[in-house]
Amino acid sequence: GYSQFPRSREGLAGAPEWPALRAILPPVRGKRVLDLGSGFGAFCRWAVEEGAIEVTGVDLSRKMIAAARDRGPGLPIHYIEADLETFEPEADTYDLVYSSLAVHYLADFGAFCRKVRRALSPDGRLVFSMEHPIFAARAEPEWMTDASGERVFALRDYAREGERVTNWVVDGIVKYHRKISTVIMTLLASGFAIDAMDEWSPDQVALAANPALTDEIVRPMLLLIAARPVAPATIDPGP
Amino acid sequence: GYSQFPRSREGLAGAPEWPALRAILPPVRGKRVLDLGSGFGAFCRWAVEEGAIEVTGVDLSRKMIAAARDRGPGLPIHYIEADLETFEPEADTYDLVYSSLAVHYLADFGAFCRKVRRALSPDGRLVFSMEHPIFAARAEPEWMTDASGERVFALRDYAREGERVTNWVVDGIVKYHRKISTVIMTLLASGFAIDAMDEWSPDQVALAANPALTDEIVRPMLLLIAARPVAPATIDPGP
Repeated sequence: GYSQFPRSREGLAGAPEWPALRAILPPVRGKRVLDLGSGFGAFCRWAVEEGAIEVTGVDLSRKMIAAARDRGPGLPIHYIEADLETFEPEADTYDLVYSSLAVHYLADFGAFCRKVRRALSPDGRLVFSMEHPIFAARAEPEWMTDASGERVFALRDYAREGERVTNWVVDGIVKYHRKISTVIMTLLASGFAIDAMDEWSPDQVALAANPALTDEIVRPMLLLIAARPVAPATIDPGP
Repeated sequence: GYSQFPRSREGLAGAPEWPALRAILPPVRGKRVLDLGSGFGAFCRWAVEEGAIEVTGVDLSRKMIAAARDRGPGLPIHYIEADLETFEPEADTYDLVYSSLAVHYLADFGAFCRKVRRALSPDGRLVFSMEHPIFAARAEPEWMTDASGERVFALRDYAREGERVTNWVVDGIVKYHRKISTVIMTLLASGFAIDAMDEWSPDQVALAANPALTDEIVRPMLLLIAARPVAPATIDPGP
């Protein structure tokens, strides 16, 4: 199951995109942090180490929350077992809402954005990662060899948004494909401004350490986004 | 040559993305408009019709500028023959800078963004289209059939940014591939906020009228972006 992935076993060190994600995170010292889809709790523990004053992790899986508690016994982390589709965080409460590889499982990304917007303090930040839409457009990845002998990713259905049923780890997992522009426009419509975007790919050091990452040069698998709340747009009444 | 494309012969009506691009344009009535890469002048003529008070078109091609003048004799459009890489528009002068399918020919997109930022009035807007990075990642498009018999786009080299030499229309045309995230981060670093993004794809009406547009569902070919100037970010000095 999920617990055998490097990112599950080794925590943040097992996630090759972590340095890039960390680069778009605000400082968390003295801040209130909410992690939506906290899994085995690696980010929650990191936030505590970095000096966050309040850390809450939300996950659908009771087993993952139990495992997260086991990995950081006694740490001041508040875990909540809840479905992100229906979980409603308290308004105006968090300085950072973080979410790693969870939003592509949500049927309603707009509802997610709006609830995060409400939950954030005025100077708060949303930082999240998701499956890159190029990767998520297909239910199952397919690789081919093109006419010049190069390894290529067989992209299809990019503009056909909606459900994708995959058999990754567990059969019949439902994910949702959304175009990058839909993700961005949903954030803007929910009262966010875009602060940063990273279509993660490995640098030469990461490639040398893990040659399998060459696939990330062919097509991106991860999209990282940082956003900040803005005041609702005022309508210009004109002259 | 270029003049035989529907978008060249028929102007904006021959560009299937025009309704989507128009949807993210600000009103131009009473505004000063700069079109960078004005080609046969279709957008400049449209801006005049819509009531812009000052319209300037810039293009590298003397032949295209001559053709643009022929298509709208007597119209108050000022055409300038110049290379967009070196052209420097006047500062704080334009309410709208528009550019259609030109920026992927520029070696220095950052310089483009910074000069547009300087040229815009405080309430100005930048609206541009470009080849979508999924499409532009390959020098030449390649289509294949995947294991399930579906037509797929053979994506490669997405994270390898830089020159692409194509033999489209004319041999040896140099284009530049940049990731979407690079385009967005370059705009943000140049003092813009993102207002809108559209990875253009046809709706059912457009598909029925032109079945060849089905390819646009498989992979996007065009990326449309609207951005507005923002004050340079102030550094939060902390507590």
